[in-house]
Amino acid sequence: MSSNEGLGIVETKYYTFEEPLKLRSGEQLGPITLAYETYGKLNEDKSNAILTFHALTGDAHAAGYHEGHTKPGWWDPMIGPGKAFNTDKYFVICANVIGGCKGSTGPSSINPKTGKPYGLSFPVVTLHDMVSSQKKLIDHLGIKKLLCATGGSMGGLLALKWAIDYPQSLQSTIAIATNYRHTAQQIALHEVARQAIMSDPDWQGGDYYGKSIPARGLALARMIGHITYMSETSMEEKFGRKLIGKEKLGYDFSHDFEVESYLKYRSGNFVQRFDANSYLYLSKALDYFDLAEDGGGKLSDAVAKAKCDFLVISFSSDWLYPPYQAKDLVRALKSNNLEVSEILINTSYGHDAFLVEVDNQAKLVSAFLQRMTKEYERV
Amino acid sequence: MSSNEGLGIVETKYYTFEEPLKLRSGEQLGPITLAYETYGKLNEDKSNAILTFHALTGDAHAAGYHEGHTKPGWWDPMIGPGKAFNTDKYFVICANVIGGCKGSTGPSSINPKTGKPYGLSFPVVTLHDMVSSQKKLIDHLGIKKLLCATGGSMGGLLALKWAIDYPQSLQSTIAIATNYRHTAQQIALHEVARQAIMSDPDWQGGDYYGKSIPARGLALARMIGHITYMSETSMEEKFGRKLIGKEKLGYDFSHDFEVESYLKYRSGNFVQRFDANSYLYLSKALDYFDLAEDGGGKLSDAVAKAKCDFLVISFSSDWLYPPYQAKDLVRALKSNNLEVSEILINTSYGHDAFLVEVDNQAKLVSAFLQRMTKEYERV
Repeated sequence: MSSNEGLGIVETKYYTFEEPLKLRSGEQLGPITLAYETYGKLNEDKSNAILTFHALTGDAHAAGYHEGHTKPGWWDPMIGPGKAFNTDKYFVICANVIGGCKGSTGPSSINPKTGKPYGLSFPVVTLHDMVSSQKKLIDHLGIKKLLCATGGSMGGLLALKWAIDYPQSLQSTIAIATNYRHTAQQIALHEVARQAIMSDPDWQGGDYYGKSIPARGLALARMIGHITYMSETSMEEKFGRKLIGKEKLGYDFSHDFEVESYLKYRSGNFVQRFDANSYLYLSKALDYFDLAEDGGGKLSDAVAKAKCDFLVISFSSDWLYPPYQAKDLVRALKSNNLEVSEILINTSYGHDAFLVEVDNQAKLVSAFLQRMTKEYERV
Repeated sequence: MSSNEGLGIVETKYYTFEEPLKLRSGEQLGPITLAYETYGKLNEDKSNAILTFHALTGDAHAAGYHEGHTKPGWWDPMIGPGKAFNTDKYFVICANVIGGCKGSTGPSSINPKTGKPYGLSFPVVTLHDMVSSQKKLIDHLGIKKLLCATGGSMGGLLALKWAIDYPQSLQSTIAIATNYRHTAQQIALHEVARQAIMSDPDWQGGDYYGKSIPARGLALARMIGHITYMSETSMEEKFGRKLIGKEKLGYDFSHDFEVESYLKYRSGNFVQRFDANSYLYLSKALDYFDLAEDGGGKLSDAVAKAKCDFLVISFSSDWLYPPYQAKDLVRALKSNNLEVSEILINTSYGHDAFLVEVDNQAKLVSAFLQRMTKEYERV
């Protein structure tokens, strides 16, 4: 798609607030800068704003093109004129989470107190803190109530968190490929990724900025991630046992199979664009996440705080955030008489489906948003 | 169980053959030593021998106790007097695979040509080579035809390989928690483990013997393994989000959750007992494995060479070697008019079920072996 057909060139903006944010841990963080992008126009009564949250390794650049770049934002097929999040109608906002490394304050940012990167002196942030910081941005933009909070994977968890943290400021939530708390397997997978990073001698206790980055450890973390984002079926369909550049097995420890070189290639790209410490912080934030916490351990009590309507989309082959977990969430929402549309999309794409199963999602999202626009106007 | 109730004290034996073995790669390996154990007595007509193959990180010590040890062999609940592999009736053999590190010739063995450990100069071995080397042991023991070849996970693959490599020398195969070729996801998981080992600076190109071992890399490999051996459900049942030694989250990068310290504890033990290079060689051998190879790429043609009866056991929650893969194998066997008993055991234990779901397996194995004993005598 040429940039003329979509949003065209977009720019990242920055919003800094000086007042320290009190974090879930009890620590304070500030000043905080949020990198964010917006697409479409905020209407006069500010009733058409949609806040999109990104996933673990995403960023504020959700759609359109950055000047001189040929790759669009991470959710470009879903955001733009005439698309699911139709920017002819809606004002779409996406901000990089705190703890990240894409313009918002995180471990690679300069600690104003020391003049050096925070590194591990950056406080452990939670999804609650990410949402609180973005609430400041939404206030700054003068938006009293969002039409919708949405996202896939971690983005879906953040949207759910907004729904119970700021129920008065939200008309609807679209939670995709999501869960309501991290389970033992999800924690275990992240823990291996963290140990891979922290075992890399170049990690240096997180104090590697300006020196060699812990590229080997971060690459391992990303490889594990990739395996969990695809399904067993999609890996088999894409790679199977196809050999790369060889007529037959090499009988050595170089790569034989396409899937091996794919992992190397993708993780090699990743270490160029992502900060290892941010991977530690964001994976930890995810592992800490349990929506039930806000209900004294009871999910249905926690979601009782929500007031909005929900669209919950899950994917049949997603084994990282399996559909049964979304089902548990839906049950808790419905037990509170909340309006919930629940969709299970049959796909082989696994967890990645929220990025690639565009057609199916687009129809659902588009119809849901039209309904929510009417609801918003009625209230 | 006290050792008095089972096999009691057992000892590992060694068999060395000087004549080099021609490997699948074209290279030669020799002399080869095989570490093995036997349980029960070989009967006069040598018709009661069962060859058990171990899994990736297993060894020849399948049952009974080593002098001074309190932990029995890896399949002790299944092998012994009155057990599934009843040593009052059967003569059970288990040998460590070549490429391993538990007494059989592998990368940590001394290369007689150099007087130093092989390291990466050890040739890449395949499951075919492992089976050929064990055929020499069975010949040495004077056994013309095994009553049964069996094993779980890699052990199951080796049993299948024997069935098509030495069809005249086998009455039956019991393949448990098994597959017939490594898929892209299985290769990918192993590749991350290999990269973790090879990324550890202590690995030193495989030349670390007598120096620091690549403990961090091997620990990471084992952590990934553990996650794949359990199911999402069994991890949730065993650990959930239970905190370890803390009243609340620590908001730092030490461990918070039991599942994290479990992975650390188990992988810490593992690096003390297993050689990192062996992990490379055995994981590679598994990834290379495709039973269909022996049928010019067609599984049903490959298994056409088999002449024995089969018992194929798979486990509902095994996501490493999912039951559908066993089903594909069974279909191929049946298409050749082979006798196949196919059992899917419902369990939450995942791939590990072949080690822990004893009661269900024991009944099936015991009944199958009784039938096979009669068949053997009839032939």
